[in-house]
Amino acid sequence: MPKFKAAIIGGGSIADKNHIPALKNLSDLVDIVAVCSRDGSKARALADQHGIPHAFADAAEMYRTCQPNVVINCTPNTLHYPFTMQALENNCHVLCEKPPALHAHQAREMADLAAQKGLILAYNLQLRQTSEWELLMRCKTNGQLGDIYHIKANFLRRRGIPGWGYFTNREMQGGGALMDLGVHVLDLALCALDYAVPANILANTYDFIGKTGGKGLMGSWDPQKFEVEDACMAYLSFPNKASIMLSASFALNTKADIDRNLEVFGTQGGAKLFPFSLYTEMAGELADVHFSYLEDVDIQLKNTAAFLDACLGKPSNVCTAVQGAILQEVVERIYASAER
Amino acid sequence: MPKFKAAIIGGGSIADKNHIPALKNLSDLVDIVAVCSRDGSKARALADQHGIPHAFADAAEMYRTCQPNVVINCTPNTLHYPFTMQALENNCHVLCEKPPALHAHQAREMADLAAQKGLILAYNLQLRQTSEWELLMRCKTNGQLGDIYHIKANFLRRRGIPGWGYFTNREMQGGGALMDLGVHVLDLALCALDYAVPANILANTYDFIGKTGGKGLMGSWDPQKFEVEDACMAYLSFPNKASIMLSASFALNTKADIDRNLEVFGTQGGAKLFPFSLYTEMAGELADVHFSYLEDVDIQLKNTAAFLDACLGKPSNVCTAVQGAILQEVVERIYASAER
Amino acid sequence: MPKFKAAIIGGGSIADKNHIPALKNLSDLVDIVAVCSRDGSKARALADQHGIPHAFADAAEMYRTCQPNVVINCTPNTLHYPFTMQALENNCHVLCEKPPALHAHQAREMADLAAQKGLILAYNLQLRQTSEWELLMRCKTNGQLGDIYHIKANFLRRRGIPGWGYFTNREMQGGGALMDLGVHVLDLALCALDYAVPANILANTYDFIGKTGGKGLMGSWDPQKFEVEDACMAYLSFPNKASIMLSASFALNTKADIDRNLEVFGTQGGAKLFPFSLYTEMAGELADVHFSYLEDVDIQLKNTAAFLDACLGKPSNVCTAVQGAILQEVVERIYASAER
Amino acid sequence: MPKFKAAIIGGGSIADKNHIPALKNLSDLVDIVAVCSRDGSKARALADQHGIPHAFADAAEMYRTCQPNVVINCTPNTLHYPFTMQALENNCHVLCEKPPALHAHQAREMADLAAQKGLILAYNLQLRQTSEWELLMRCKTNGQLGDIYHIKANFLRRRGIPGWGYFTNREMQGGGALMDLGVHVLDLALCALDYAVPANILANTYDFIGKTGGKGLMGSWDPQKFEVEDACMAYLSFPNKASIMLSASFALNTKADIDRNLEVFGTQGGAKLFPFSLYTEMAGELADVHFSYLEDVDIQLKNTAAFLDACLGKPSNVCTAVQGAILQEVVERIYASAER
Amino acid sequence: MPKFKAAIIGGGSIADKNHIPALKNLSDLVDIVAVCSRDGSKARALADQHGIPHAFADAAEMYRTCQPNVVINCTPNTLHYPFTMQALENNCHVLCEKPPALHAHQAREMADLAAQKGLILAYNLQLRQTSEWELLMRCKTNGQLGDIYHIKANFLRRRGIPGWGYFTNREMQGGGALMDLGVHVLDLALCALDYAVPANILANTYDFIGKTGGKGLMGSWDPQKFEVEDACMAYLSFPNKASIMLSASFALNTKADIDRNLEVFGTQGGAKLFPFSLYTEMAGELADVHFSYLEDVDIQLKNTAAFLDACLGKPSNVCTAVQGAILQEVVERIYASAER
Amino acid sequence: MPKFKAAIIGGGSIADKNHIPALKNLSDLVDIVAVCSRDGSKARALADQHGIPHAFADAAEMYRTCQPNVVINCTPNTLHYPFTMQALENNCHVLCEKPPALHAHQAREMADLAAQKGLILAYNLQLRQTSEWELLMRCKTNGQLGDIYHIKANFLRRRGIPGWGYFTNREMQGGGALMDLGVHVLDLALCALDYAVPANILANTYDFIGKTGGKGLMGSWDPQKFEVEDACMAYLSFPNKASIMLSASFALNTKADIDRNLEVFGTQGGAKLFPFSLYTEMAGELADVHFSYLEDVDIQLKNTAAFLDACLGKPSNVCTAVQGAILQEVVERIYASAER
Repeated sequence: MPKFKAAIIGGGSIADKNHIPALKNLSDLVDIVAVCSRDGSKARALADQHGIPHAFADAAEMYRTCQPNVVINCTPNTLHYPFTMQALENNCHVLCEKPPALHAHQAREMADLAAQKGLILAYNLQLRQTSEWELLMRCKTNGQLGDIYHIKANFLRRRGIPGWGYFTNREMQGGGALMDLGVHVLDLALCALDYAVPANILANTYDFIGKTGGKGLMGSWDPQKFEVEDACMAYLSFPNKASIMLSASFALNTKADIDRNLEVFGTQGGAKLFPFSLYTEMAGELADVHFSYLEDVDIQLKNTAAFLDACLGKPSNVCTAVQGAILQEVVERIYASAER
Repeated sequence: MPKFKAAIIGGGSIADKNHIPALKNLSDLVDIVAVCSRDGSKARALADQHGIPHAFADAAEMYRTCQPNVVINCTPNTLHYPFTMQALENNCHVLCEKPPALHAHQAREMADLAAQKGLILAYNLQLRQTSEWELLMRCKTNGQLGDIYHIKANFLRRRGIPGWGYFTNREMQGGGALMDLGVHVLDLALCALDYAVPANILANTYDFIGKTGGKGLMGSWDPQKFEVEDACMAYLSFPNKASIMLSASFALNTKADIDRNLEVFGTQGGAKLFPFSLYTEMAGELADVHFSYLEDVDIQLKNTAAFLDACLGKPSNVCTAVQGAILQEVVERIYASAER
Repeated sequence: MPKFKAAIIGGGSIADKNHIPALKNLSDLVDIVAVCSRDGSKARALADQHGIPHAFADAAEMYRTCQPNVVINCTPNTLHYPFTMQALENNCHVLCEKPPALHAHQAREMADLAAQKGLILAYNLQLRQTSEWELLMRCKTNGQLGDIYHIKANFLRRRGIPGWGYFTNREMQGGGALMDLGVHVLDLALCALDYAVPANILANTYDFIGKTGGKGLMGSWDPQKFEVEDACMAYLSFPNKASIMLSASFALNTKADIDRNLEVFGTQGGAKLFPFSLYTEMAGELADVHFSYLEDVDIQLKNTAAFLDACLGKPSNVCTAVQGAILQEVVERIYASAER
Repeated sequence: MPKFKAAIIGGGSIADKNHIPALKNLSDLVDIVAVCSRDGSKARALADQHGIPHAFADAAEMYRTCQPNVVINCTPNTLHYPFTMQALENNCHVLCEKPPALHAHQAREMADLAAQKGLILAYNLQLRQTSEWELLMRCKTNGQLGDIYHIKANFLRRRGIPGWGYFTNREMQGGGALMDLGVHVLDLALCALDYAVPANILANTYDFIGKTGGKGLMGSWDPQKFEVEDACMAYLSFPNKASIMLSASFALNTKADIDRNLEVFGTQGGAKLFPFSLYTEMAGELADVHFSYLEDVDIQLKNTAAFLDACLGKPSNVCTAVQGAILQEVVERIYASAER
Repeated sequence: MPKFKAAIIGGGSIADKNHIPALKNLSDLVDIVAVCSRDGSKARALADQHGIPHAFADAAEMYRTCQPNVVINCTPNTLHYPFTMQALENNCHVLCEKPPALHAHQAREMADLAAQKGLILAYNLQLRQTSEWELLMRCKTNGQLGDIYHIKANFLRRRGIPGWGYFTNREMQGGGALMDLGVHVLDLALCALDYAVPANILANTYDFIGKTGGKGLMGSWDPQKFEVEDACMAYLSFPNKASIMLSASFALNTKADIDRNLEVFGTQGGAKLFPFSLYTEMAGELADVHFSYLEDVDIQLKNTAAFLDACLGKPSNVCTAVQGAILQEVVERIYASAER
Repeated sequence: MPKFKAAIIGGGSIADKNHIPALKNLSDLVDIVAVCSRDGSKARALADQHGIPHAFADAAEMYRTCQPNVVINCTPNTLHYPFTMQALENNCHVLCEKPPALHAHQAREMADLAAQKGLILAYNLQLRQTSEWELLMRCKTNGQLGDIYHIKANFLRRRGIPGWGYFTNREMQGGGALMDLGVHVLDLALCALDYAVPANILANTYDFIGKTGGKGLMGSWDPQKFEVEDACMAYLSFPNKASIMLSASFALNTKADIDRNLEVFGTQGGAKLFPFSLYTEMAGELADVHFSYLEDVDIQLKNTAAFLDACLGKPSNVCTAVQGAILQEVVERIYASAER
């Protein structure tokens, strides 16, 4: 069968370091035909650097000229919606950066259009590709966890407010620690509960450190321009009584530089994701199972491959358009609870 | 001034191992004049063993005979209310075991009667006496934490359903992991927020492991008679936007045998209780402060002493009747949310 | 049913510290009626110390006077055979110290007489009562190990030649490290292979350090009187191709003070005994299973109880007379190979 | 003196990564004049890549054309014998990959021909070049170990069946874990005993995991085509009563990914190879000696240099033709015992 | 030979806990005949408690009545001189607590009188009895250290100003950290240099923390009454160019609660005392030797026994009168340098 | 403002690896115009390799031709004085390698000439640029240490006599471990005391290992040509009673390969430099403060930048000419004391 023709929308570092290398590694399946960025010179430079034939400042022109059937949307959050809609309308499968959009209704429209067009829309939530997550899913399937009823999901940075880009700009990003970090572990937690929709949500957001300033471990930020939450705490309760405690922060007075983890508690066993451990009973005794030889994988490469598998109609564990719409809705409800 | 005359109500192990030794250590302040237990022979045996003059099966008779002015109420949860009320009516200061009562309205009545009588009613929440908690309170007072806005409070046992007593009996205990374990760390968390009353609570309770059975690290329990929650997860949000994540379990598929801890996050610093660590900025750098030489204390002795200080009108950090009423109300609202 | 009447033969420290306390702990099942030692005053002292009614220097007199139905034989190795035979002839069940005897033919005779009399003869190989060994047996039964095909059994001391008793005296002990230490782990290894009889054995014994002298970690020994092996290395191959590597030493230039362990390798999993770990595959990955909460048990108490269970016709994991005969035969063949 | 002229026989990865780089590092002593591989194009590519003047598919032609005086035989096991014999007949010194050959009689013929021709034949057993082994030999020479009487030699992989090449093919390799891994530590153990010939050998081989399949840490293998042993256990007893316990595995349910080590027990001291530790007595106390500053060396480079030293008549610690013949004989006797 | 008759002078805790138990353990060599304390009731109580026949408030009377031939002087520092002189004049061997005296001339007089009388005068510097120190001396004798040319001697406490006794009283103690702690490690360091007399000394003393106050790990002290040094730093240079760096503190802002150690540097090897390690070269490599099995000893018992050995004319490693005089002289010169 | 024009004097590895890369990294401030080495071909090669326009064998010619205004003096110790004087006379600011000179009077002359000419003369003591040192200085400024009264300064190598260059040549280097290593930590210690001049110094130097030979961890050295001290121990006492214990070695029988550290003891707190820890009291308890996130910096780059800052009249923490003169004087007094 013919190879996919992929266009990259967005000329930033995530295109350069993540998506383009992944696609080039999958060159038996896909060719990159164009890069498109509002700043045409950035598009040009990126195309030259990676040997991509075309560069555009205008997406419409790109569609006319190159007729891609796959689009990688790696624009800022605020542009996820318009550029994904345009791509779908141009009959392209889309792999869109996270979060899905700024608003829940946008993510739903995106999912609806993809369904209507019979196209794949997927989100780049790559933690699903870690060996640890895949092992957790296998343990779940094998029954080693039983029914999962509680999850603690953390993505905490002590002083990790990014000192570059739009990360502290509410208009461009739509939010802070939850939008940027929390969605990763929230997506995993929802997966563990089969993407059920929460019945109730109670949450709070904070911005004390962001607005005060301090030592930065990811560059310096300007407290004057800090418009988003530096921490978000949320509790989600589900119709079947399962629950999630979610903690996300750009800045928090906590021990570790970074604490990104998931703890899952089920009727037969519990598990911690990093390093992967299983807590259960075996031969009548309490058993702690460690897996020392999990493979180190390139999670971007695997997620891009999983997206292409989906486009080819194969089984795939990529985050779907429908899941993305639920995820965005949950994010919106968390912010709503925090502002009540 | 004359010594206090103390009566012990309840003839179980907590009287024998905790309260009587503590009072005997404070013999310059207090004499134990009587032990009272519905099972008169238990009262007799305890009195003989500890050289206490009187033993009673009937409390009313005890009050008539001995006229104590201090009562230690170490009966099962369901009897905290009636025996405390009776003691107050007999003009005794009361140190009552936790939880305050089975229902919020009981704890409020108890507080009201104590106030009306001008008596001290206090609860035996001894974690307040740990060196770590006192240090946390000093750090809070000194401003080393700034304003506290989030707390994670855990009291988790992996397989610690007590295989004796009434711990799994709903009628006698009123609940399970929350009533027995959770109240300890919930009390500390509420203290850290100056015992504010939560605006919103969302919670869930579980009983999967308790009702299924398995390895017991605190004796064996009978799954058929397991009537309470083996785990309780709750989120509390306060009028000033502060929040508490509370996790308590008798049984959970988690790593450690026991995980009893508090993490406190403030605008100037964060702290973990056991071992006590402070996470903050110092001289422009991120600083982790450890305190290796904290004194190991007898927390029961210190709590009993703190109660007597209160009776003497001195400053005291013991849990007050009013705080106990709030604590009981929060417990009741957590259960209510879990049953919604 | 009536209690057993037990007589102790041998007045040494193992009677005093191990067997008598265990029997006293089982006083609902058994009464100790007599102590017998060639040194009558030792017998007398031991009886007085433990409140045992009778003491004898002559065993025949003891049988006449007290008519016990249970005998604990805790004499030196060389007396295991005659006193056990006498006890069986006096219609007593016998728990005999290890090793079973000095020679294989003795152990076989002892087993034959017990069978003929319908009496229980068991050996005091208490490592079978450790929580770790019981867990290993459960794992074997559950299939978590598959078929076991190789075992490494070690009981190594770096400088642990006992500086007291008969441990270095060939006539009294029959041998050194193998007779005293090796039999413990050899018994476990043979159990793991269902007490199959080896097809071939190749072995060596050494006495370099014992005959030279040096630092003693268990008292000082006299190199001039060192008549036994200080180390024994053996390889056992079984009809089904399974194999055991056995290493035992009183003295060896090795790292640890004491290294007493068993590693078991099976088709589905492998296990190490101390601390108990299971090495296997789970959910498609290599898994290391740790059991942090194994109970600490009094292995002498459990072994004595297991012996009494056997006497009562109940299931029991105590080392049987038939197993003891095989064990002694293997020991004899190891020595024979070493002297070839 | 003139430089050696070396020819490489065998065009695989071990030529490319090990032998050719080592020879190039020793360019003041030797020039590589030719590469020879049955697959002429592989020879050509390798020659081009490394700037070697000639490439041949036919060895005879190579000898005629290039007249080398040194040959590196890095062919598959089955070809060690014919190509080494041919090289010796062409008056070349030979460094041959391990194991020496498939059969003991081949290795003896090779040694005989080398002796008759006055040529050096050596085997590439590079562990002899580790700093640890050289230190062990110095300790042995200095008397710090006394007489060595027992050795435990392990080369165990948990799941390390190579998923490439001929490693599971009996015809090409002659065996599995023993042939590929075991010979390395067996060679060291025999060296430690001055390459004495064992008086007795008892051994077993297994192939349960290899024939069943499972997780592979060195690529995937096909259980259907697994024809060799995945584990080999052996005991060697020597005329002077010394003994070796040898354990080698491609796959075994054991803790570590790889456990390659030697423990040596002598009358004055014992030693463990990795990390090097000496266990002995000093100043009347038990002493553990650690050597933290051993040099990290390129063992292939050192072994090739040692071979060239031998060719130049200098002292050398390379494995000699005579040692190789003994080693092969021991391997053959191990397999014979396992098949008895 | 007849047993020694010992009298105890001084009724404090060091008599009660150290010296009397040691003497009682040596009851085959010595009987305690009397206790003498200026506070007669203390003497009486101590005598009764330990079953000692006589108690006195007046030493002269004690000598008349009991005629001891051994005296243990465990009075405060200021009384070491007068009571030791009196004991010698009464023809008693004397074991005197450290430091020898308050002034160098006193210690010299004491040594002179002992010499003149032919009596043993020894000081209770018990660190000489640790297994580690004895091993160091053996290593020195065996030549494993070569010539020792530098020593770092530390006895540092972070906040260890004793909150009881006379420790902060200059008149009674003569000094602080040096007098109480420093002398122990100074004695060892001087021993290591064969008790040579320093050619030059440069030193400083401090009292900042002692006079300011703070957290006390050995009870609370009164900064107002702190009259001695809380830290003393000194450098000693010897005629043969060897040197000692001495650091002693009651209070210092340093890491460990207590750091009591000696590092010795010689031409052939260096050693650290606790835990004992030897740093040297062996077999041409840098070697770190650890001794994991050193015996835990009762250093007071061993020092008392060593004193009695000296009294019996046997070899003994106890600190002699002459060494004590040098030690006191060095202490005096250190204080003199600090006050220059 | 115009860029500086820098000339490099000295063509060794420290020019190549440290100074030239640092200057190139600061190319917005400075151009390298020339390299000058007595060995003209070395100068030429270095210039070519780094793209520097000019190379000279004669410094006078260099000054005439290139007219630099900045000179980096990286010649051997013996040439620090003449080349720095020449550079100052040619009106250049100078960054001179450490130690300042061979003799104290030289360093004073250098400082005097720099002052007279109004030029910057600074020394390349780069440890001042570590994050740890800068943090220590901030703690000192903030009062977290109080008054510093004692410092232990160590720069110890176990076997680190450099096997190259002039390091063991007295004439070229002026000394050994003190001149090469000790000056680094001595400079820091003096800084911590505000570069006070010591009132008294007592010191010793040793050369036992250097003159005997042994294992070398930094190459092999020739004991026959070892003319300097391999170890230097010194004690410095200051007018305000503060003290420094300084230990420096090329070779010493000590534990660690390298031990380079500073411990600082003050009235309010103490600190250890690597890893940076602060020991103090906080909230009434003893507190150990760790700083886990200190930045890893290029200390040469920072020191060169600090030197240029000084040349530009900006604040700078570089070691000044006046400090260098004091440092050299202290070094000279240490050697004088050692030779007394």
